[in-house]
Amino acid sequence: MQAPEPGACRPQQPGGPPALSFAVEAQDGAARAGCLRTPHGAVETPAFMPVATYGAVRGVAPDELALAGAQMLLANTYHLHERPGEAVIAGCGGLHGFTGWRGPWLTDSGGYQVTSLAGSARVDEDGVTFASPVDGTRRQLTPEGAVAIQEALGSDVAMVLDECVPAGGDDGAARVRAAMDRTLRWAERSRNARRRDDQWLFGIVQGGTDTTLRRHSARLTQGLGFDGYAHGGLGLGEVAARRAELVALSNEELPADAPRYLMGLGRPLDLVDGIAAGVDLFDCVMPTRHARHGVLFTRAGLLRLRNARYREDRLPPDPDCDCPTCARFSRAYLRHLLQAGESLAGRLASLHNLRFYLRLMQDARAAIRAGRFAALRAEVAGRGDDPLP
Amino acid sequence: MQAPEPGACRPQQPGGPPALSFAVEAQDGAARAGCLRTPHGAVETPAFMPVATYGAVRGVAPDELALAGAQMLLANTYHLHERPGEAVIAGCGGLHGFTGWRGPWLTDSGGYQVTSLAGSARVDEDGVTFASPVDGTRRQLTPEGAVAIQEALGSDVAMVLDECVPAGGDDGAARVRAAMDRTLRWAERSRNARRRDDQWLFGIVQGGTDTTLRRHSARLTQGLGFDGYAHGGLGLGEVAARRAELVALSNEELPADAPRYLMGLGRPLDLVDGIAAGVDLFDCVMPTRHARHGVLFTRAGLLRLRNARYREDRLPPDPDCDCPTCARFSRAYLRHLLQAGESLAGRLASLHNLRFYLRLMQDARAAIRAGRFAALRAEVAGRGDDPLP
Repeated sequence: MQAPEPGACRPQQPGGPPALSFAVEAQDGAARAGCLRTPHGAVETPAFMPVATYGAVRGVAPDELALAGAQMLLANTYHLHERPGEAVIAGCGGLHGFTGWRGPWLTDSGGYQVTSLAGSARVDEDGVTFASPVDGTRRQLTPEGAVAIQEALGSDVAMVLDECVPAGGDDGAARVRAAMDRTLRWAERSRNARRRDDQWLFGIVQGGTDTTLRRHSARLTQGLGFDGYAHGGLGLGEVAARRAELVALSNEELPADAPRYLMGLGRPLDLVDGIAAGVDLFDCVMPTRHARHGVLFTRAGLLRLRNARYREDRLPPDPDCDCPTCARFSRAYLRHLLQAGESLAGRLASLHNLRFYLRLMQDARAAIRAGRFAALRAEVAGRGDDPLP
Repeated sequence: MQAPEPGACRPQQPGGPPALSFAVEAQDGAARAGCLRTPHGAVETPAFMPVATYGAVRGVAPDELALAGAQMLLANTYHLHERPGEAVIAGCGGLHGFTGWRGPWLTDSGGYQVTSLAGSARVDEDGVTFASPVDGTRRQLTPEGAVAIQEALGSDVAMVLDECVPAGGDDGAARVRAAMDRTLRWAERSRNARRRDDQWLFGIVQGGTDTTLRRHSARLTQGLGFDGYAHGGLGLGEVAARRAELVALSNEELPADAPRYLMGLGRPLDLVDGIAAGVDLFDCVMPTRHARHGVLFTRAGLLRLRNARYREDRLPPDPDCDCPTCARFSRAYLRHLLQAGESLAGRLASLHNLRFYLRLMQDARAAIRAGRFAALRAEVAGRGDDPLP
């Protein structure tokens, strides 16, 4: 499925760049194409990371992900901490030995999940205290603890613990400001806690939708000195154009030679907007979650398999796609599997949607190197990919 | 994974056997190895058919089934009649065009599912009347209708509609006898209703656990003249040794040159017992259902993944297995996926269990051809595969 990419990460030479390195190799406006090297392989950027919450992309096997063009996966620190626990994973050779995905892994810090999933979470200066949904015991996640867990998991890229609060409400501005300040203090503690030098650690820019706060957060996070930087707390309801502007402005404060990661977004248009603002890494559950609901991405727009018009449709889901699902199965069959509650539906649809996202990233890298990224962005914007509410 | 089998079905020569044919090629006691030819390919017998209720084995793709050694799949006529309906499948090129499995298909008649699943089913001489669980409408399944549906589905082997009643109760013997007699009348109507000559039609032997009834049923079903014969109504609680005896005695009444199918059974020991009694075809949900519950078949016995002893076990599920799951994943990882509710667990475990069953059939065929089937049977019996209750 994957053709060799012109300008792809070149094999490392003896005396070449160190195992952890990032290089921007081409630029088109603020959009950039580069290579992120990790101890477990190189990642062509801009890159999209499929989400493997528990160390597995729902229903999809590692070899299928590689064939679809995935280079790095994202796992959720909080979920793996709860189940099976980082000690089990460390005992089985870390994420790479445990899961069957031998390529690069990025882990989030767990903060977002703890506060949004563990209902009774309480945040103070120490960290986040919560009741484990698995066994009900009180637990605490601190900046130091989040680093230690991720070091035990052995991911290639770790994230600092951040506090992410929704904007809005009477005291909205003050809360966003306080969370941003705390995130900075936690970032410093995280940086001081790291023990491994074979793992990237990324700082996280916060500050809600306030331009001044986000620039300030980016400047100070950069001052702490991280290997890379992420934009957090976005995709929470703000207008897309506003978000792109916030990311672009924050990026001006970040070192040009460090990788930048826009967390948790999103639609194909969000990805190209992010790339246009100078972002290198993305993750989102959208392609796999949409797939499980029978919503397929195509260049012609979203295809909703539940629609009765596909009942006897013998065409492949996307005649323009080179994935195994489109090579072998019809819309009618996928629709039937979905209606019958067969898990194969989600698996085959996920494979397609992931290929769609990963191919978009391949196209973006090629477009940047060829100086025609604006045309690709316009094409994606013209598609009107309307996400599920 | 699959090595070419010595003595496997030879390629068809011009002027060779017709598209529908069965030949016994080797015999070892009553056990026999042969070749069943269908319009969509040849099947080495004895063969195990994975169950693809809705036209898909839960979570497993057609190419994976072929790699595991599957040659023929079983689909459920009743389920496909309800959803998506045989007209949709016929419009998409039959089961072979619709599902992505281009090899041979066997369909059951739907009778068993109608009476056991559609709660309000009522059986009379015409057929079975039931309320559709999909839309609540009253429907009737007749012997003629069951043939017509299966002809529309385009399976390679179709089954006559039979009436299957559990033995036991005050009027048990009378009910079993009446159901056997009705099955004979329905078999004749089914035979007279067939329109396609490119599809096998199998009669079904009934008669509960009564030797005389089953022999009688076999003799009269044979007299009606079918392409093959099945043993129905077994695996409903009778002792395994008694079942093997009933099958062996009925087989004496059936033509030696027609294929024989033991429906819905079962454990690895049930399969080798069936083969020893002269059976050629098997199907059962056990390998895939056990897989979804985390129970794996191995030559050393059943491996129950939920057991805490496998928490950090880095061994493959079955070190003796050549399936992709055992090649790439550990017990610890599979156990984790299962505990986390990840559907990949069921998929990977199904792939292993199916490979175990299909490899057992390969071993059985080779053993029969080599005149050492009794040794294989003794080995399987010595394992004590204890199924889930």
